Amino acid sequence: MSMKRSTQTVRISIVGFGNVGRGVAEVIRRKREELARRYGLDITIVGIADLRGVIVDENGVSEEAIKALKTGHKSMGTMADMTSVEVIRDVEHEVMVEATPTNVETGEPGLTHIITALESGRHVVTSNKGPLAVEYKRLMELAAKKEKELRFEATVGGAMPIFSLVKGDLAGNEILSIKGILNGTCNYILTRMAEEGLPYEHVLKEAQEIGIAEANPSQDVEGVDTAVKLVILANSIFGRNATCKDVEVTGITEITPDALTLADEAGYVIKLIGEVDREGNLKVAPRLVPKDDPLNVGGILNVATIKTDLAGDITVIGKGAGPIEAASAMLSDLIGIYSQKVQ
Amino acid sequence: MSMKRSTQTVRISIVGFGNVGRGVAEVIRRKREELARRYGLDITIVGIADLRGVIVDENGVSEEAIKALKTGHKSMGTMADMTSVEVIRDVEHEVMVEATPTNVETGEPGLTHIITALESGRHVVTSNKGPLAVEYKRLMELAAKKEKELRFEATVGGAMPIFSLVKGDLAGNEILSIKGILNGTCNYILTRMAEEGLPYEHVLKEAQEIGIAEANPSQDVEGVDTAVKLVILANSIFGRNATCKDVEVTGITEITPDALTLADEAGYVIKLIGEVDREGNLKVAPRLVPKDDPLNVGGILNVATIKTDLAGDITVIGKGAGPIEAASAMLSDLIGIYSQKVQ
Repeated sequence: MSMKRSTQTVRISIVGFGNVGRGVAEVIRRKREELARRYGLDITIVGIADLRGVIVDENGVSEEAIKALKTGHKSMGTMADMTSVEVIRDVEHEVMVEATPTNVETGEPGLTHIITALESGRHVVTSNKGPLAVEYKRLMELAAKKEKELRFEATVGGAMPIFSLVKGDLAGNEILSIKGILNGTCNYILTRMAEEGLPYEHVLKEAQEIGIAEANPSQDVEGVDTAVKLVILANSIFGRNATCKDVEVTGITEITPDALTLADEAGYVIKLIGEVDREGNLKVAPRLVPKDDPLNVGGILNVATIKTDLAGDITVIGKGAGPIEAASAMLSDLIGIYSQKVQ
Repeated sequence: MSMKRSTQTVRISIVGFGNVGRGVAEVIRRKREELARRYGLDITIVGIADLRGVIVDENGVSEEAIKALKTGHKSMGTMADMTSVEVIRDVEHEVMVEATPTNVETGEPGLTHIITALESGRHVVTSNKGPLAVEYKRLMELAAKKEKELRFEATVGGAMPIFSLVKGDLAGNEILSIKGILNGTCNYILTRMAEEGLPYEHVLKEAQEIGIAEANPSQDVEGVDTAVKLVILANSIFGRNATCKDVEVTGITEITPDALTLADEAGYVIKLIGEVDREGNLKVAPRLVPKDDPLNVGGILNVATIKTDLAGDITVIGKGAGPIEAASAMLSDLIGIYSQKVQ
């Protein structure tokens, strides 16, 4: 649209400055002019907090300070003597970007960060699954009470849109179920096992060597990561109050090359499928998927098929992981906060 | 969200009352309470205009009047002595739903309907490709001048979201190209030819018998329908001012079962692919697609892969046609008008 509009300043903090937090900072740096031009948003990072230290600058943190934080050179005089919680509470800003590591048992430290931000009257955009899996209802009630937004597109499917797809693009539809591959590590392992006829342990090791699987892969391969994502989908899209305990989970560690070969001969592939429906069933398990089904995607891709009453089945496919992909989802969330009148 | 909100009355007209227009009326009837509860919108149809006649009722047209219009029983006293243009101009309402048949040469009668609605200060939601292919720039400039919205999700991919996906879910991304299967009839024909080894003419006839291909299938099988959709994508997403003349088009009428077999043996399928990029290239042609590519979907499905700078490749798959599917997209457009602060 060619309508003129004034530019609105949006001050943000980034809490947790690992790959995802850095991705957000990098994307905002690259896109600053474009965001002002296209969306009328002048996004300024006024605080970054991490275990390594804290930078605060009301005029926008400098590239030099960011570099110092990354390399741990606290001598540069850019560091503030504050905790993460103090930055969230005491530095004036509009949106807190939460990107600390996920803890699915306690939700911490993300949970405290998000509560502090909402209590302080700030919107929240997060990639952290833990707080949403542990205390979804409490967080959304707090956000509603404070009339602030809590957005979390990056928690499920990385750059692959799902919450915004359901709430925006499919508005007016009733969602019957969501079913898909929500863990790229498992998909990579099963795809390689099927292609090469190699055993699980061999492919896992290969995946670890190229950085697709973590040194301790249990959260991924035992299906816990997929289960956590299902919990967030259940709570957000189906209005449930589920936790990980409500999910029936089987991982991929027992899948053999023989099973994949048998499936192949019958026209199927085996994928780790997460499924959640409006009746409140939550299940993660290896399932046979017909080769010509849209859910049959390979490599590290994620996919979700959303069953609706009007639009039928809508499938979306994208990269489920990666810092720039997560940052993409978080940037869309950030823009969405300033372009949406109602939830 | 549990925030309370007051209900806003949205009066709409439906112009063109074939399958899609009826689908919209049916969906609004079914969903009226849900739309009030979830979105705070009380959607009332105050006018329906069609070649068969016109119904106007400021309190909402009755089911009986709709039935009478469908069956042509003008004797029921429900008909108004007005033209479509008079309904659009003179009946007080907020949104005109345009669902007359597409004419890709002149854009009429949809073009006149949309211009009249915008000039009269009404938002427009349309499934009609013609006006957008012929006069995109003029229509969007008029909408901007009048500060009204013109939405057209249903014109490309039916229920499969694409415009809202790019503008909302992928906000902040630069779109590099869009590539996909945008015509379900061609996809059905090529899928059946590949599966059964049958010649084009045979499968076309079969598709005509079951209502998937029209009696005069040339718009579909010669690639014109796909070309028109590319023009709308080029203009809307890439800011072009393209028309059908700018598209290089080859259809599927020359594809042989032999070609499909050769492709199959090499690990490919042949699909009618439409592609548009930010450099302004618009092309429709049968293309080889690797079997494991997300673009390889069968039957009447549509698919689009959106190449972006941050999110990577995002693919969306859905039913490209059907009255309820089109109505789903139009309903999402309607809700979107009342939930979006900026375009």
